Amino acid sequence: MLSPEKQLEIIKRGTVEIILEEDLKKKLERAYKANKPLRIKVGFDPTAPDIHLGHTVLLEKMRQFQELGHEIIFLIGDFTGMIGDPSGKTETRKPLTREEVLKNAETYKEQVFKILDPEKTVIMFNSKWFNEMTALDMCRLAGAETVARMLEREDFKKRFTEGRPITILEFLYPLLQAYDSVYLKADIELGGTDQKFNLLMGRQLMKIYGMEEQVIITMPLLEGLDGIQKMSKSLGNYIGINEPADEMFGKIMSINDELMLKYYELLSHISVQELEELKRNIKEGKINPRDAKEALAVEIVTRYHGKQQSEKARDRFIKLFREKDIPEDISTIEIKDEGEGVWIPKIIKEQGLSKSTSEAIRLIKQNAVKINNEVLNNSDTKLKKGDYIIKVGKKRFLRVRIV
Amino acid sequence: MLSPEKQLEIIKRGTVEIILEEDLKKKLERAYKANKPLRIKVGFDPTAPDIHLGHTVLLEKMRQFQELGHEIIFLIGDFTGMIGDPSGKTETRKPLTREEVLKNAETYKEQVFKILDPEKTVIMFNSKWFNEMTALDMCRLAGAETVARMLEREDFKKRFTEGRPITILEFLYPLLQAYDSVYLKADIELGGTDQKFNLLMGRQLMKIYGMEEQVIITMPLLEGLDGIQKMSKSLGNYIGINEPADEMFGKIMSINDELMLKYYELLSHISVQELEELKRNIKEGKINPRDAKEALAVEIVTRYHGKQQSEKARDRFIKLFREKDIPEDISTIEIKDEGEGVWIPKIIKEQGLSKSTSEAIRLIKQNAVKINNEVLNNSDTKLKKGDYIIKVGKKRFLRVRIV
Repeated sequence: MLSPEKQLEIIKRGTVEIILEEDLKKKLERAYKANKPLRIKVGFDPTAPDIHLGHTVLLEKMRQFQELGHEIIFLIGDFTGMIGDPSGKTETRKPLTREEVLKNAETYKEQVFKILDPEKTVIMFNSKWFNEMTALDMCRLAGAETVARMLEREDFKKRFTEGRPITILEFLYPLLQAYDSVYLKADIELGGTDQKFNLLMGRQLMKIYGMEEQVIITMPLLEGLDGIQKMSKSLGNYIGINEPADEMFGKIMSINDELMLKYYELLSHISVQELEELKRNIKEGKINPRDAKEALAVEIVTRYHGKQQSEKARDRFIKLFREKDIPEDISTIEIKDEGEGVWIPKIIKEQGLSKSTSEAIRLIKQNAVKINNEVLNNSDTKLKKGDYIIKVGKKRFLRVRIV
Repeated sequence: MLSPEKQLEIIKRGTVEIILEEDLKKKLERAYKANKPLRIKVGFDPTAPDIHLGHTVLLEKMRQFQELGHEIIFLIGDFTGMIGDPSGKTETRKPLTREEVLKNAETYKEQVFKILDPEKTVIMFNSKWFNEMTALDMCRLAGAETVARMLEREDFKKRFTEGRPITILEFLYPLLQAYDSVYLKADIELGGTDQKFNLLMGRQLMKIYGMEEQVIITMPLLEGLDGIQKMSKSLGNYIGINEPADEMFGKIMSINDELMLKYYELLSHISVQELEELKRNIKEGKINPRDAKEALAVEIVTRYHGKQQSEKARDRFIKLFREKDIPEDISTIEIKDEGEGVWIPKIIKEQGLSKSTSEAIRLIKQNAVKINNEVLNNSDTKLKKGDYIIKVGKKRFLRVRIV
């Protein structure tokens, strides 16, 4: 084991808050002296996971804990999944069956073990203890928190103020999730900043149950490709870890320099020292940000597709963009194919590269439109599923993904 | 069985609300046709009962249902009693043990079977079904109501607005008590007006569970001896059903004429027709209210102490008051004896019959103070536990109970 001081330095990287750092130090020192790993709890949703780089911020932190010799509990909250969501906020969520939960767990494993060490990961399901729990125990749990405290939580407060329904059950969820920490005797719980309320509830409940409180560590929500909103599938600004190497590579190359440094901090495996050096070198003009971005893309694509695939993706990217003078940092637009392909003049017009489809047709007839660097001759062409670079005139580019 | 119309007339007597009367009619008609009794649920607290006439309003209505041939479920909510009360509103209530619950049930029986027919009363404990209930079932139950609806309830709203804590558990209580109706397949639930929210919750939950909704009937909260506040032990304005016959008789004689008619409506067994006639006769001056009050006192004392005791109490009352010219309608002041008796001049001063204790002492020395119609000679006298009439001067009386 590394010294507690060294461990703390690694753990702190990229975190938003540690509550309380003093407690974390004590736990690390005790673990070091007794040579006994800490128990790190991280909760995951039981619904079908489709993991993107945003999720991996947490997974990377978990991996760091594993490398430091600690025990990671990958907790799947399947109990709540069995209840379904009675709230008005989304369409009623159907309760998951035992089979669905187990299938989803397998899907999780396939994905997260690209980052986590399977040998050092304990996967648990909270139905294990909640299925044993009686209604009386649940009532006692419900006695541990007040309505006013629950309504302090931002999302509840907002819904309550707006008159949207919140069921009593939704007030039980944070307590259930806090009870997981009690049952697991967690030393530390990790989560995104949006989970802070729940993580603190775990701390509070452990105190009520007369236990040493867990330390909570919050990680930032990774911004998506736009650099503004948090990465999410529904916003289309994400990089899925199951995406093809070329797509992943291209997407990473499209982010701006500032975001690149954040991605370095939260996703790269380079050390804290190397990261500081990189930042300094870029600032002093000793390293071209484009090269740093390429190195990051290679590192991340290698993680999910291996070295060979990653290098091939890099070579294809350079061939496609750099040698043809296409700017690298254009973002990808995702367009849904309703079944018959998507008509190119419609894309050109809707993305603002022409005022009308007839203008787009005229441009095509003037040989001013290229698809993947080939002149487009037929203005009737429809794009099927796949990735395309559309060039209009000399300077305007679109990176389109038809899904 | 009486005709549904006749039953409805009897059931409606003294009620505040019937929701919905239409539904009640249908249920009564169906029960009449099938000659199958309705199931009437009435919930009671599991804590040690000390029943006063205020409680008997509900019990008298239950008795009426029994006389009409229906089935009374006397439901003791012992499950919630096993949780204890975690709220800040009272000092933490200790969870009751199984033994305490059963002991309290016996105390209930001793008292309520003075009114209810033991043969037609089913005593149940809701721990029977809640002990079998899982945490998952409880979560589903919690999904049936919203936070906003709960906060509409007056007491919750008030506490929330004033910043006093309400635990999530307290939000579960109304749902638990509503689930009792689901489990029992109640046709009707009876309660005080302060229970309306809970009774309606039962209706709502039955609907969610796809059952025919119970009819709810609310009864007024009986005013205490002061005619203003609701009868309650803590306010000292109550008549306990275990009180001695003399005390009970005297207390009933002390109420005002308006309250007497309410007591007649809610507590007397005279029929709806007889009650109307009584009201008319008093209004027209054909019956002296004092005689009507005496008849009510005799009826009620007979119920709890038998005819002989009741008549003896009446005779003693007449001897003590009427023959000595003491007004009958003076109310009783309850004073706590801190261990050495209560000094009479202090009582006289504190009840406003003298300006100071020294004035009271002077009055005693002037032979102007009588205790139970005997001149008081010694101003050092302290009153021990018991009931006393204190007369000061010619016209001022106090009825004092030292406890």
